[in-house]
Amino acid sequence: MTRSTVGIFLFDEVEVLDFAGPFEVFSRTRLVAGSDSRRTDESAPFETFTVARTTDAVTAIGGLRVLPNYSWAEAPRIDILVIPGGFGTRALLNDQPALDWIRKTAAASSQLTSVCTGALLLARAGLLADRRATTHWAALDLLASLDPSIQVQRDARVVSDGVVTSAGVSAGIDMAFSVVATLHGQAVADETAHYIEYPRR
Amino acid sequence: MTRSTVGIFLFDEVEVLDFAGPFEVFSRTRLVAGSDSRRTDESAPFETFTVARTTDAVTAIGGLRVLPNYSWAEAPRIDILVIPGGFGTRALLNDQPALDWIRKTAAASSQLTSVCTGALLLARAGLLADRRATTHWAALDLLASLDPSIQVQRDARVVSDGVVTSAGVSAGIDMAFSVVATLHGQAVADETAHYIEYPRR
Repeated sequence: MTRSTVGIFLFDEVEVLDFAGPFEVFSRTRLVAGSDSRRTDESAPFETFTVARTTDAVTAIGGLRVLPNYSWAEAPRIDILVIPGGFGTRALLNDQPALDWIRKTAAASSQLTSVCTGALLLARAGLLADRRATTHWAALDLLASLDPSIQVQRDARVVSDGVVTSAGVSAGIDMAFSVVATLHGQAVADETAHYIEYPRR
Repeated sequence: MTRSTVGIFLFDEVEVLDFAGPFEVFSRTRLVAGSDSRRTDESAPFETFTVARTTDAVTAIGGLRVLPNYSWAEAPRIDILVIPGGFGTRALLNDQPALDWIRKTAAASSQLTSVCTGALLLARAGLLADRRATTHWAALDLLASLDPSIQVQRDARVVSDGVVTSAGVSAGIDMAFSVVATLHGQAVADETAHYIEYPRR
């Protein structure tokens, strides 16, 4: 089986559940139901990894320390790009190399996604122009101000308009399930949600 | 403010959301509502960290690599001990140093908790004897077989009977909120759930 690659961007002060939720969903999805199928990657439709500017340890919000699987320079081709949020996004809004990497990687991907305030980075990179999109409830106005052409969706948990954006933090889990359902069907998404006992909205 | 410490045990093949969910909840809880209070630790009632046998990188299920904040030997006193699950628990069931560390750390803690198949380790360590407890749906029979005195709860998401155990993976988020509510009230738990946009059961 050819697996789609899922690259999850990490940076200092990333929100833990923003990246860990989608990592869990994509890495635990199986096309064969049940607990045993999770013991191997045999029926795994995704290859999931983290990617950061360098492979130095990243310190997430709260002090969780993560070693990125790849640097920007060494990462394999990314089919599904996940941009999580967190206070660390604020510094990246004026970080041209980061915005360039997101733009370039998004252009080469088949699906661009964000969680929470990751949408701010997509907006700044010009990737949400004229699209419907959402973000964490505390950042909705900021999202609108970054690009007035965005049709900010204030009550949505997941918004799919070419780019798939989501509301805050745990909504990234629903974003990931939405992508799984689009690519592999609702039954596969539902079965994986059952496996991780997630109360889907 | 004196903060309670939350120590989350990490080991190879730990399930990502099992540890990341409680890490998110405990590290983002604030006694002051809103988004701004999350920018500092000023109103944070918990100090949350990861702890493992050594500070070498741990490889979670799916390949996420985490650098533990502390080794067993160097960890500060742990008030709330979180034992997550994952396939890595199976090897630990026969790992006497790990079971001894759990027993000793649990005895010195004020609250012992588990997520998913972390309950198997507590059972093997004798810490669930004569208690009501739960685990991931695929491990309920195994939990019962490890200690027949456990009253296994097959349909519960969180079970509080001295030790707080939870069902699979994402149920660890609810377990953490349950502990937050017990220690700091339902309003604080609800406000943090709102902050991370978690659809609580």
